[in-house]
Amino acid sequence: MNVTKQLERIFNPRSVAVVGASASPDKVGYMCVGNLLEMGFKGKVYPVNPGLAQLFGLKAYPSVSAIPGEIDLAMVVIPAELTLSTIEECAARGVKGVILVSGGFREVGTKIGAELQSQLKEIADRGGLKIIGPNTLGFINPRAKLNASFQYTLSLSRAGNVAVAAQSGGATIYAVHALTNHNVGISKAIGLGNRCNLDFDEVVSYFGQDKDTEVIALYIEGLEEPRRLIQAARKVVRRKPIIVYKAGRGEEVEKSTFSHTGALVGKYQYYKAAFNQAGMLVVDSIGELVDKAKALAFQPAAGGNRVALFSVQAGPAIIMADKCHDLGLQLAKFSPTTKRKLKKLSSSLNAVSNPVDVAWTSDDFDASRQMLKAVLADDGVDAIAVAAVFYSTNMELMRAVVDVAQDAQKPIVVCLDSPRGTAYAEIDALETSGVPVFPLPERAVGAIAGLVRYGKVGGGGGIRTHGPPVEGQRFSRPSP
Amino acid sequence: MNVTKQLERIFNPRSVAVVGASASPDKVGYMCVGNLLEMGFKGKVYPVNPGLAQLFGLKAYPSVSAIPGEIDLAMVVIPAELTLSTIEECAARGVKGVILVSGGFREVGTKIGAELQSQLKEIADRGGLKIIGPNTLGFINPRAKLNASFQYTLSLSRAGNVAVAAQSGGATIYAVHALTNHNVGISKAIGLGNRCNLDFDEVVSYFGQDKDTEVIALYIEGLEEPRRLIQAARKVVRRKPIIVYKAGRGEEVEKSTFSHTGALVGKYQYYKAAFNQAGMLVVDSIGELVDKAKALAFQPAAGGNRVALFSVQAGPAIIMADKCHDLGLQLAKFSPTTKRKLKKLSSSLNAVSNPVDVAWTSDDFDASRQMLKAVLADDGVDAIAVAAVFYSTNMELMRAVVDVAQDAQKPIVVCLDSPRGTAYAEIDALETSGVPVFPLPERAVGAIAGLVRYGKVGGGGGIRTHGPPVEGQRFSRPSP
Repeated sequence: MNVTKQLERIFNPRSVAVVGASASPDKVGYMCVGNLLEMGFKGKVYPVNPGLAQLFGLKAYPSVSAIPGEIDLAMVVIPAELTLSTIEECAARGVKGVILVSGGFREVGTKIGAELQSQLKEIADRGGLKIIGPNTLGFINPRAKLNASFQYTLSLSRAGNVAVAAQSGGATIYAVHALTNHNVGISKAIGLGNRCNLDFDEVVSYFGQDKDTEVIALYIEGLEEPRRLIQAARKVVRRKPIIVYKAGRGEEVEKSTFSHTGALVGKYQYYKAAFNQAGMLVVDSIGELVDKAKALAFQPAAGGNRVALFSVQAGPAIIMADKCHDLGLQLAKFSPTTKRKLKKLSSSLNAVSNPVDVAWTSDDFDASRQMLKAVLADDGVDAIAVAAVFYSTNMELMRAVVDVAQDAQKPIVVCLDSPRGTAYAEIDALETSGVPVFPLPERAVGAIAGLVRYGKVGGGGGIRTHGPPVEGQRFSRPSP
Repeated sequence: MNVTKQLERIFNPRSVAVVGASASPDKVGYMCVGNLLEMGFKGKVYPVNPGLAQLFGLKAYPSVSAIPGEIDLAMVVIPAELTLSTIEECAARGVKGVILVSGGFREVGTKIGAELQSQLKEIADRGGLKIIGPNTLGFINPRAKLNASFQYTLSLSRAGNVAVAAQSGGATIYAVHALTNHNVGISKAIGLGNRCNLDFDEVVSYFGQDKDTEVIALYIEGLEEPRRLIQAARKVVRRKPIIVYKAGRGEEVEKSTFSHTGALVGKYQYYKAAFNQAGMLVVDSIGELVDKAKALAFQPAAGGNRVALFSVQAGPAIIMADKCHDLGLQLAKFSPTTKRKLKKLSSSLNAVSNPVDVAWTSDDFDASRQMLKAVLADDGVDAIAVAAVFYSTNMELMRAVVDVAQDAQKPIVVCLDSPRGTAYAEIDALETSGVPVFPLPERAVGAIAGLVRYGKVGGGGGIRTHGPPVEGQRFSRPSP
């Protein structure tokens, strides 16, 4: 079984055993079983603990060997020194993957920890079994209603097209929560921890094949063999964008990075250059990772860096233009035809230039629609950002954006704020039509920069279109 | 009457006339009257329109002269060419301030527009009257339940200690909404528009005296006499921080800036250097303005740049350390005493270093409290950031933060995310205790950088303490 097929089975298991299941609510072994059930996983769940007869009404087993049926995935939450025999047992039973939550391996920095981990790797490699971790959170697959982690809030994630892989469980959680709060759905999210015998390159290759994944977001602390990831990324990156936050800047930080997941950490600048060269999108913060993932999850790449700005207010237009300047994006110069069309459609009070001042037409659906169409048709325009503060009359402009976005071959993003959630319905209408909404002007332009960068990588500038990733549960209130 | 006293009256008027009041819901003259009433303003409201007998049950007057009582503030929403006589009338009736919403003055770039504005200024100066605008949004004073603007969502603002003044109405709205969504209260927020005879320097001097204002946030496009603002800022900045976003970068942007409020726009770098030298905190985005304002609204300045990081997870610790590195903050080196105390309090599994790993003590209120106290007592520490993903057991650490923050003389900020609003109550408990909460690790450190920068300005490093600005209405859900 190749690794990609194996990961497909691991992410979509028919059965999950939890070794170290516990009846104490403060134990990780309790949380893992609870999360599996609470998110609504439909496969079989086998609690394993010699001291338990049942848990949550499920029959418990004294050992992995005692489980009657096939086991695709095992979650292991027992002390490090007891894990070797368990992994042996799992291998013997044909388990495809083990989430090894337990710590106490390479990350502790002792000889015994490192040795334990290399023994684990040997057993796993021999048994054809993939270990996620050790020292990890686990993973989620919202489409399978599977929360195979100890963090219950991950069950609030919606299904979508963004895959997340992170070396740190905490970073996984922050990224997934932030994506969720920004209405972005997840295909899979996984914490890789110490990467015993499952590393970023294999996961990226899998996401490259995964039909539910269209955007890949990574949080990386350090790699033993960066070249492997870079080779894997090169094969994927023209079909699916890969956004990466590389942690660990400066010597002090590198020290704490080592003690986390035991990775050898190289110089940040080296990684950054190599990742960029491979066509990955290197970002500087989790916030930027989330905004760029959102843009790429909703919209096609841009064919170039010439941006048209629409704004109801002058201030936000200037802020967007500032950000274009800061990020090396150009304000598109409109053709004489476009100018003529805009002049005809605009109020006489509007200046026809870029940013396009739509103060006097934002309450007119048809005029707004035609203005957007005129600018979309201009060969000198690669992407559009539209900004409006929340006001009922401006919503005709937003309706027009929804309308033109259906057939647009160029990316469109919106800046619309929502004081205390008041613009919930309007944001929903935009996002279910595939138009991503950002709460601040500079963030809308930052998102465009991601689409432009991905266009440069060759990722289908202006031709790749995503359907809207929004599905399943909705927010009662958006959280911009 | 000096300008500061006059502005005090304008921001706290006993009566407001709306010239150009209208019964059509799509007219600005309708919105202005409606907003005054809807936010609950207790003073007198006089609609003025010769064609109206009443509006919202209020008696309407044919002219300003016809109003019987004293008028402190007038909102004027009539065509530009009709404004001169109205301002004359206002001056004759002793009106202290006029919000001139109407456009059609200097910002249109015509000779007639510029002339109209200079005539306005002459009348206003002669009559001892301040014109806010023209071409403006108006202002809000949440403590007086006064929304003297055409934007109804500004009525959702809560009362607090941050004053906002912006050249653009749109920027005012975005900033106020974002502050509101981040649980930050407003003392006053004002759009200055074309700044006919009320400019940033006068407003900053007023905010400097205003007892309700503790932090000043500015959005500036261009100034005729930057020196005046710089002189005013120098007098205020040691008592109250002034955060400034200077818009207009690059030549293209400068052009659109001019056409907005008719200001002469200089080179961005010149402004930036001059503002920094005056002790103002120059920021690069509205998001940064909001986060720094929040930090300064809730916490004292830092006495230096040595930061202690607490984190339940290693990943967020590394992200925070990265951001410290990027922003020139140092990871504090703990004294032997502090290390000894931490060693005693930590689990044997915790490494005692900075970032402080609190993975095994975050569920222990007493241990968390003592660890925080030990680090606060270390002379080598100037500020603390604490990060946790939302998980019930981590909330003991958060309770400890609330406890120690009461007497802390050093700033403490928290990173706690809230997937779909689940951490609402916990964030509320922190923020009503004056501890600002940010949803991402890098943003918590960005906030600390603002507190460090303000400490360098001399703004009461470690001694100035704010009470919590949170009051009045609460969110049903927070919006991180």
